[in-house]
Amino acid sequence: MTFDPTEHPHRRFNPLINEWILVSPHRAKRPWQGQVESIDNDVKPSYDESCFLCSGNTRINGEVNPEYQDTFVFQNDFAALKPDTPKHSENDPLFKIESEQGESRVICFSPDHSKSLPQLSVAAITKVVACWQEQTRELSEQYQWVQVFENKGAVMGCSNPHPHGQVWAQNHLPTLVQKKQLALSSYYEAHQSSLLNDYVGRELDNAERIVVANEDWVVVVPYWAAWPFETLVLPRFSVTRMTELSCAQQSTLADIIKKITIKYDNLFNCSFPYSMGWHGAPFDGETHPEWTLHASFLPPLLRSASVRKFMVGYEMMAESQRDLTPEQAATMLRQQSDVHYKSE
Amino acid sequence: MTFDPTEHPHRRFNPLINEWILVSPHRAKRPWQGQVESIDNDVKPSYDESCFLCSGNTRINGEVNPEYQDTFVFQNDFAALKPDTPKHSENDPLFKIESEQGESRVICFSPDHSKSLPQLSVAAITKVVACWQEQTRELSEQYQWVQVFENKGAVMGCSNPHPHGQVWAQNHLPTLVQKKQLALSSYYEAHQSSLLNDYVGRELDNAERIVVANEDWVVVVPYWAAWPFETLVLPRFSVTRMTELSCAQQSTLADIIKKITIKYDNLFNCSFPYSMGWHGAPFDGETHPEWTLHASFLPPLLRSASVRKFMVGYEMMAESQRDLTPEQAATMLRQQSDVHYKSE
Ligand SMILES: O=P(O)(O)O[C@H]1O[C@H](CO)[C@@H](O)[C@H](O)[C@H]1O
Ligand SMILES: O=P(O)(O)O[C@H]1O[C@H](CO)[C@@H](O)[C@H](O)[C@H]1O
Repeated sequence: MTFDPTEHPHRRFNPLINEWILVSPHRAKRPWQGQVESIDNDVKPSYDESCFLCSGNTRINGEVNPEYQDTFVFQNDFAALKPDTPKHSENDPLFKIESEQGESRVICFSPDHSKSLPQLSVAAITKVVACWQEQTRELSEQYQWVQVFENKGAVMGCSNPHPHGQVWAQNHLPTLVQKKQLALSSYYEAHQSSLLNDYVGRELDNAERIVVANEDWVVVVPYWAAWPFETLVLPRFSVTRMTELSCAQQSTLADIIKKITIKYDNLFNCSFPYSMGWHGAPFDGETHPEWTLHASFLPPLLRSASVRKFMVGYEMMAESQRDLTPEQAATMLRQQSDVHYKSE
Repeated sequence: MTFDPTEHPHRRFNPLINEWILVSPHRAKRPWQGQVESIDNDVKPSYDESCFLCSGNTRINGEVNPEYQDTFVFQNDFAALKPDTPKHSENDPLFKIESEQGESRVICFSPDHSKSLPQLSVAAITKVVACWQEQTRELSEQYQWVQVFENKGAVMGCSNPHPHGQVWAQNHLPTLVQKKQLALSSYYEAHQSSLLNDYVGRELDNAERIVVANEDWVVVVPYWAAWPFETLVLPRFSVTRMTELSCAQQSTLADIIKKITIKYDNLFNCSFPYSMGWHGAPFDGETHPEWTLHASFLPPLLRSASVRKFMVGYEMMAESQRDLTPEQAATMLRQQSDVHYKSE
C-alpha cells in the first residue's frame, strides 16, 4: 500500500508557528447528527434605527455616530485594552503577570447596514483598506503591535450584522505573533530570505492550492490549513507592513478581498462567516526583513451553511484536526463563480 | 493609580505551554446582543431506540451493541486515526508531512441514556475511570500517546447526548503535548521538581483559586485559565500517568469528578457543556519525573446557560482573552451547592 494524502490520515507542519495539524481526509463522509447553525438569509435594510453602528444613531454610552460616508472609527465602548493601565509585573515562574496598555477600536466599513465586504464596490473596499492603513500608522506610533481583524457572522461571536471590524493595539507582542516572530527569524537565519516570500513562489509554481490571484496578491489555502476553508492572502511583492502599501496596492488588495469573499459567499450560498486578520512586522524600530505582510481568513463552516467544524476535544487537548485536504478545499473554492450569488 | 487585577487589563503566563492570556476583567459587563445557544432541558429517556450508543441498538455500520452494564468501548465508525496507514514523510521546510498511525475509540460511560457524569453514582464513575485506565494501558503498548477526552453538549460539537467520551491513540506526540513536554522538562531541569507538583502546593497554601478538594485530588481554576470556567484536576500525590492509579485513587478521582461536574451543572442550572481530557507522561519507555498526571475541563459558557464565550478574532489572530478573573470564576464555582440542582 502506498501513501495517498487524499485517503490516509497524516500530519502537516505549519512552519509559521511550528505546529502540526492532523488531516483525516475520510472524516468528512461521516453523517452529522450534531448542532446545526441557523442560517441568516434575512434581507436587511440599508439603515436600521436600532443599530449602534449606523450613521446618526446613538450608541450605548450616549455618543452619537456622525453621518459618515465611507468608514467610521470609534473607541470600543467596552474596550479589552486601555491606554492608562498602571504599569505592573511579577516574575514568579508559576504566577507570572504583567499589566497591558493598549486600545480597542471599532471600524465601520460602510454606512450601508445591509452590505458585507463582498457586496461593497472595489472603491468602497479600498476605503476600508486605507482606513486599516491609517489606523495602523496612527496606533503604531504608540504601540508595538497593531491587530486589525474582522469577526463576521453570529457563529463567530459577532453581535451586530452591520459591516465592521476592529483594531486592537498593545505594548507587548501577543502569543501567536511571538511564535511567528521566532519561526520567521529562524527561517531567515537559515535561508537569508522571508519564509512567506519563498512560500508564495512555490505555491504559484504548483497552482493546486491557489484560489484566486491578481497582479499584486494571491489567495491560497495553505498547505497547513487548520480550518476547513482557511486561506492566506499573500503579496507578490516585498512588503513587511500594512503601512507600506501604495495607493495602487491598496486597490489591488480591495480587488482580491472582493474576489475571495464572493467565492466564500458562493460556496454555501450564504453570508460566509469568518474571523480574518492581518499580521506584519512589529513596530519596534527594526526593519524585519524576515516578515511578509499577510492576512488569514479563518472560517468555521465545513459542509454547508449550517454545519460547522467544531475545534473541540481532541483539538483542544492535542492538535488541530481537519476533515478534508487543503487541496480539496482549494478546488472547491476555485470552482465558485466570481459573481456574487445574490446578484446573479 | 496602583494596579488592581480585578480592574485593569493584564496578561498572565501559562507555564505549561509558555503562552500568555489577556485578562480584561471589565469586559464581562458589556451587554450581549450576539448569538444565544439553545438550552437543552428536555427530560431524556433512560433508553432511546434511535441512539447509536444505547445497549442492544444497531450502529450505523450494522454492528449491534452488546447489552452492556457499565462501560462499553468500540472503534469509532468514522475514525480520524487508523492503525494500518502506510509510513510516509517528506521533510521540505515549507511542505512538511508525515503519515500517522493510530486508533479512535468511543467510550460509553453508562447504559443509561439520560445521565451525564454528575448524575452517575461514584461507583459508576469509578467504572469509567477504570475503563480510561484500561484503555490507556492497552493502547500504550502500541502507541506513544493516548488521549482520553470527552466532548459534552451540542455547543461542543457532541452529536449524541448519550454519556460518552473518546480515546484516540497515535505514534507521534500531538502539538499541545509536545509544548507541555518542553515546558515541563525545562522547569524540571531548573528546579529538580515537577512543575504541577509545585503548583498544586502553592495553590493549596493560597486557597483563592481552589474549587473543591478531597484527600487525593484538587480542582483549581488555574492562574492562567483561558476559558471562563476552565479548571485543572490535580493529584495531591506523585503520579505521572493514568495507568499508575491505585483502586483507592480511582474512586477518590470518581468522587472529585462528581463534585466538580455537579458544581458546573449548578452554576447556570443546565447540563454544563465542556471538553475535558487527560494529560500524563508519554509512553516512550522513559520515567518522566517532570510530568504530573492532570485533567483539564474547558467549558465554553460565560454568563448563562445560553451565552458563551467566543474565542474568535483577536483570540484566533493574537492571544486568548478572558472577561473575568480566574479568582472570580473560582469563587462562583466554589459557592455552588454540592447537591445537583435536579435532585434538590
Ligand atoms: O468524534 P465526534 O464526536 O463525531 O466529533 C467531535 O469530536 C471530534 C474530536 O474532538 C472533533 O474532531 C469533531 O470536530 C467534533 O464534532
Ligand atoms: O468585541 P465584540 O465583537 O463584542 O466580541 C467578539 O470579538 C472579541 C474580539 O475578537 C472577542 O473577544 C469576543 O469573545 C467576541 O464575542
